[in-house]
Amino acid sequence: MQAGILIIGDEILSGNVQDTNSSFAARLLFSNSIPVSRVLAVSDTEEGIREGLSWLYDKVDLLITTGGLGPTKDDITKAAIASFFNSELIFNTDVYETLRERFAKRGKTLNELNKAQAMVPAVAEVIPNDVGTAPVFWIEQNNKVVITLPGVPSEMRFLLEHVLLERLKAKFVHRQILQKTVHLIGIPESDLAMKIAGVEKKIEDSCSPDEKYKLAYLPDMGTIRLQITGTGDDRHKLDHEIEYFKEEIKTAAGKYIFGYDHDILATHIGKLLKDRDTTLSTAESCTGGYLAHLVTSVTGSADYYQGSIISYDNSVKVKELGVKQETLDQFGAVSEETCREMLEGCLKKFDTTYVMATTGIAGPTGGTEGKPIGVVWIGVSSKYKMNVRRYHFDRNRLENIHLFSITALDMLRKLILGLE
Amino acid sequence: MQAGILIIGDEILSGNVQDTNSSFAARLLFSNSIPVSRVLAVSDTEEGIREGLSWLYDKVDLLITTGGLGPTKDDITKAAIASFFNSELIFNTDVYETLRERFAKRGKTLNELNKAQAMVPAVAEVIPNDVGTAPVFWIEQNNKVVITLPGVPSEMRFLLEHVLLERLKAKFVHRQILQKTVHLIGIPESDLAMKIAGVEKKIEDSCSPDEKYKLAYLPDMGTIRLQITGTGDDRHKLDHEIEYFKEEIKTAAGKYIFGYDHDILATHIGKLLKDRDTTLSTAESCTGGYLAHLVTSVTGSADYYQGSIISYDNSVKVKELGVKQETLDQFGAVSEETCREMLEGCLKKFDTTYVMATTGIAGPTGGTEGKPIGVVWIGVSSKYKMNVRRYHFDRNRLENIHLFSITALDMLRKLILGLE
Repeated sequence: MQAGILIIGDEILSGNVQDTNSSFAARLLFSNSIPVSRVLAVSDTEEGIREGLSWLYDKVDLLITTGGLGPTKDDITKAAIASFFNSELIFNTDVYETLRERFAKRGKTLNELNKAQAMVPAVAEVIPNDVGTAPVFWIEQNNKVVITLPGVPSEMRFLLEHVLLERLKAKFVHRQILQKTVHLIGIPESDLAMKIAGVEKKIEDSCSPDEKYKLAYLPDMGTIRLQITGTGDDRHKLDHEIEYFKEEIKTAAGKYIFGYDHDILATHIGKLLKDRDTTLSTAESCTGGYLAHLVTSVTGSADYYQGSIISYDNSVKVKELGVKQETLDQFGAVSEETCREMLEGCLKKFDTTYVMATTGIAGPTGGTEGKPIGVVWIGVSSKYKMNVRRYHFDRNRLENIHLFSITALDMLRKLILGLE
Repeated sequence: MQAGILIIGDEILSGNVQDTNSSFAARLLFSNSIPVSRVLAVSDTEEGIREGLSWLYDKVDLLITTGGLGPTKDDITKAAIASFFNSELIFNTDVYETLRERFAKRGKTLNELNKAQAMVPAVAEVIPNDVGTAPVFWIEQNNKVVITLPGVPSEMRFLLEHVLLERLKAKFVHRQILQKTVHLIGIPESDLAMKIAGVEKKIEDSCSPDEKYKLAYLPDMGTIRLQITGTGDDRHKLDHEIEYFKEEIKTAAGKYIFGYDHDILATHIGKLLKDRDTTLSTAESCTGGYLAHLVTSVTGSADYYQGSIISYDNSVKVKELGVKQETLDQFGAVSEETCREMLEGCLKKFDTTYVMATTGIAGPTGGTEGKPIGVVWIGVSSKYKMNVRRYHFDRNRLENIHLFSITALDMLRKLILGLE
């Protein structure tokens, strides 16, 4: 069974909008044992849509289109769909009534453009769309299914996940796909590959005509996701095998693992803090709020996170964090000494169990010979232990800020767990 | 002239990695008058690559592939390329020597896998890759060009922009494409469409057999980009016309425009503050550092941004910002009164020209009947004027945080410009 996704929109082809629909749909479908084999983006012209439809339809069992259904573009997609299936557009009373009622509730009446939305390809089953006005069609022919979804990400996501997924699974899922992820930080990909070479061998050796297993490395700006995928008929057996591989990876590289599956680093740290009934505050300079943002992006972070002093200007370091003017004069803001005093000041001010501090040069300006762009001092501390370390990253401003921040989170993780 | 992009990688099709290469490449090529008409993602198998190559090669003049060139996958892509062009893999001394020297510099010798990287399709011209070890090929046949690029975004971007672009332009660009963008905030798309209906008409009417103009609406989480694209032979004429349309849009909706082309809101505000020799600080609650991050994501923000108190816990609001305990008890943390006291406390503490404050409920937990999820009080202030307003957004946690923050930036923009 194979699925294909057709992304319709000139804004994607000009690079002005980053398509995220295909990635969301692919992940959702894949994790529900419906693998996507091709994703194609085409122009929102009848010619472009038709070409994409006909190429993909030949190759896949399920074809999902997104986009090209905006109010001014209705006719294009509908016409392309209708023409592709040698069908005609007919007036659908249900669609019309639903639209009329929805408009009436807001005290509005339908104009001609809205009325035209009730014209649908005769070949299509109309799927009720409670989250928008774009028409959603389910067309089933020759044991293949074509679905049209709107391009607005929130609508597309809701419809695929909550309205269509169960029906798709019932129709298409016979063979199971199971996937689990191990998240690691603080180890280069090549070193990790050396450490888990034995596990990789076992994963290969476990493949049989009935079950296939695969290991993928997905490095992402300082972290690595190791993804184990199993395909077969027996979900229980796949699960058992993958769990075994996970344990083997844990034995080989446990120190670098911070989570599994949907965990992200900040969520993991939230759990560690909550489980221990501890609290956290931060003192940021170069990360300028991004470190606090990572911490507070986690639902429920108010339970352990108190707050932050963002001391972007040196005067704030002195006044709010008690960094000594002499320290700044002698060693500079980007120094071990300043980082230590920021940690001390933060502990004193917020009286939390743990604190984190960053002071560095994110770039692209501000570097000097002794302290080039990308240099940062990162510190974590409790009342009993303080770890401060110098790092040097080599990316653009936003990437450096991200790397500084996740490195701080990793240092905190190790401090909490007593790993260093 | 049409270009196509072939994205190679199972990690894209499983949705585990968001492809950003095609968007970058499409934008870069489009803005250099090389329009991309199709983007296709396929599996990193020889079959998948071959299928994608042959379909796109038929339809486009320039075909760029990315991915599938990792050390363990070399042979697949190279074999697929060689087989597609009925070519064979031959040993390339230059590639071998370059690799050997690069490894020698790091005190390493080439292993068998590395040596195999010097095998290249006989049909290909090898493009020197100074930023990685993946082979980059330029294959020109029947007046068509195929280029293979690595999938690592930083390598792909560098090679396309700095190594290949000029050569591509020399070969392909005969007709000019010019694009300009107007950024707006604080107006719904439909209202904007009403306001600029006259300009839209003029843009349509300006199209002739020699020049085409097009207006696109690109809404993006609270902001709208209006994009005007002109295609023709005379770049000067296109530029003149597009500038005229920009002026017309300014007349119709100038109040909502915050920038042009590569401007983002935070950059625009940075310019406003710098031009006036003024300073800024922030007091954040629900945005948890994200507002400060937007401000400090701008290079040079240290010139005007002093710092922030992130008062995630109410005790920090009292202690650091001087919010009265009675205010919190009587009106709650999410209230106009608390927001006002946060602004006052922030002004007092940092003594900056302007301050911003946020206090709200990002969700998905923490809502009450009177103060549901997505409700936020946002305030901006100088010593002379304070604007505080209640908003209600209806998104997920991270989207709400983003909307709260850009709304704060927009309120600051209007305060600085005296618009409200």
